[in-house]
Amino acid sequence: MLPLPVLERAGTEMCDANGTGQSVMEMSHRSKDFKPIIEKAEVLLRKIMVIPSNYKVLFLQGGASTQFAMVPLNLAGVEPGEKRKSASLVETGIWAKKALDEALKYADVEVRASSKDAAYNYIPAAPAPNRDDSYYYICLNNTIVGTQWDVLPETGSVPLVADISSCILSAPLDVSKFGILFAGAQKNLGPAGVTVVIIRDDLLGRAPSWTPAMLRYETHANEGSMYNTPPCYPIYIMGLVLEWVEREGGLPVIERRNREKAAFLYDYLDASALFRPVVQPLHRSIMNVPFITGNDLLDKEFLAAAEKAGLVNLAGHRLVGGIRASIYNAMPIEGVQKLVDFMKDFEARHVSR
Amino acid sequence: MLPLPVLERAGTEMCDANGTGQSVMEMSHRSKDFKPIIEKAEVLLRKIMVIPSNYKVLFLQGGASTQFAMVPLNLAGVEPGEKRKSASLVETGIWAKKALDEALKYADVEVRASSKDAAYNYIPAAPAPNRDDSYYYICLNNTIVGTQWDVLPETGSVPLVADISSCILSAPLDVSKFGILFAGAQKNLGPAGVTVVIIRDDLLGRAPSWTPAMLRYETHANEGSMYNTPPCYPIYIMGLVLEWVEREGGLPVIERRNREKAAFLYDYLDASALFRPVVQPLHRSIMNVPFITGNDLLDKEFLAAAEKAGLVNLAGHRLVGGIRASIYNAMPIEGVQKLVDFMKDFEARHVSR
Repeated sequence: MLPLPVLERAGTEMCDANGTGQSVMEMSHRSKDFKPIIEKAEVLLRKIMVIPSNYKVLFLQGGASTQFAMVPLNLAGVEPGEKRKSASLVETGIWAKKALDEALKYADVEVRASSKDAAYNYIPAAPAPNRDDSYYYICLNNTIVGTQWDVLPETGSVPLVADISSCILSAPLDVSKFGILFAGAQKNLGPAGVTVVIIRDDLLGRAPSWTPAMLRYETHANEGSMYNTPPCYPIYIMGLVLEWVEREGGLPVIERRNREKAAFLYDYLDASALFRPVVQPLHRSIMNVPFITGNDLLDKEFLAAAEKAGLVNLAGHRLVGGIRASIYNAMPIEGVQKLVDFMKDFEARHVSR
Repeated sequence: MLPLPVLERAGTEMCDANGTGQSVMEMSHRSKDFKPIIEKAEVLLRKIMVIPSNYKVLFLQGGASTQFAMVPLNLAGVEPGEKRKSASLVETGIWAKKALDEALKYADVEVRASSKDAAYNYIPAAPAPNRDDSYYYICLNNTIVGTQWDVLPETGSVPLVADISSCILSAPLDVSKFGILFAGAQKNLGPAGVTVVIIRDDLLGRAPSWTPAMLRYETHANEGSMYNTPPCYPIYIMGLVLEWVEREGGLPVIERRNREKAAFLYDYLDASALFRPVVQPLHRSIMNVPFITGNDLLDKEFLAAAEKAGLVNLAGHRLVGGIRASIYNAMPIEGVQKLVDFMKDFEARHVSR
């Protein structure tokens, strides 16, 4: 979901953006017309997320799945014949596991804690890093299972790396605690096709010589994300979303709204006689709220009835099933109220019979 | 430049595509709303380019620059300790050189012919491949220098790989002559942010085990370009461009128009007393037409005057300078006529003084 004002403006500017007589999709990425668009996106992201000046902001392609390779290649990759480096990872769900599988190609990554024993429905206590770790990896918000870290691991001088694809811009975040943050745009930032990477300066330039140029962070850092043609249109839409976030009052306001929306839904779930939340209270995501009835057939009946009522995209991820409400920034409280009203009605019809 | 009907339709559908009540940018990539969009794009591309059924069509991210690594990794990459494989490449410009530099990380790529001696202003004769070559690499249309292959090299059983970023859909092409074709979309196909790869089935599954999952062709082939979230909106726009190409009469009609446009411009250049084309007649691109006055200052004066007259994006690539008219599919003959009229006027003012 994207904010309606963003879509309306994009529609208006489709054939003539900023009075240039061109669509943003037609602009050369090195033209004087596109330059202010990408620069504005970076300036706004830096301002809204309070990104310190010793961090680079990169606009890349390939999504989080490409970062799963770039992180280990750039932070722990070695030349042929050199001893492999170590890293720590906390396994909190399917995306953390995917990042692990990819990283094992390039480094000795140790799973330091895992919640796999309980279908990832909590965030395990995070041990301190091993002394020689090249990085310490977490997935801050787990989209599929609906968990979210409440307290960050203390990693000392070991760079903390976090996948924030599904929680970027959902609340203020202390960027200085991290070595690398990355996010695919398609949850809170904009359309699919652009990936934001925020990387501390001193972590650039560490990739081994055989790393593909496009997978080296410094390739993009040295060229202001213009080493090759960037995804211009997704970057433009992201800029409009960032303007919207700023107009709405920035991350403190966005967080308050997100917490209100999530509380409204969890409060109902905790009291419901039919539905129950999947995740333990301390680690509940404010972005993704999975729940079940405990009866697969009834879950499916609910999803079908909800879709009929215009409540779409409620199926749990295809790997876990169940029901999941994703309540990203652009979802208004009214959307959550409408969902809860529908659930109450569905519950009344099914619990009494 | 994109066809105006494409932009107009995209603008109309921005907030409600195909009656779904959503923008394409809001659709889940696995939803029943997006599925017909990506499927239609593939069906149309297969039909328009007459792609044989033993080729996969992939919609990826990362542009040609990512393909510069994927081609050697997938066709010539080896496990640690194995003997490096060989490949052949013809160096016809800066993009071929970039592909070479990247490929040398993974394979023993030999430059079999080069036109560097004449600033790449011709296509050199292509020798037969070496017997054990993993692939034979060319750049079919050289955007920066404005050359185009007239006759393809005969490579026998060695897979011919071509970068067709700046000539895809400009004219019919016999796909069956190639092992892999790839193109960034931002010239003739659509907006920046999606890369089309056309790969023969038997070339899948050859990448070594340490290849990043996102850089393995079969990762995407096995999942119908849905291994991770694809660049949904650029794919949607590409689909609209493909509909436009089909409505206009397909590649035979598009080629005729492109040849008319190019001939109109080259005929003037060959006769001009002020401007001269850079490329030898046999290898002139019908997409990119570079020319010069022979006087750098006069080139710059021309570019400034042209921009004042509303003729934009005429500067030669920043690496070579001069003047360059890119006359991609969406540029109408009237645009070329307007340019030639302006050049004639400029010539009259400067040759007579």
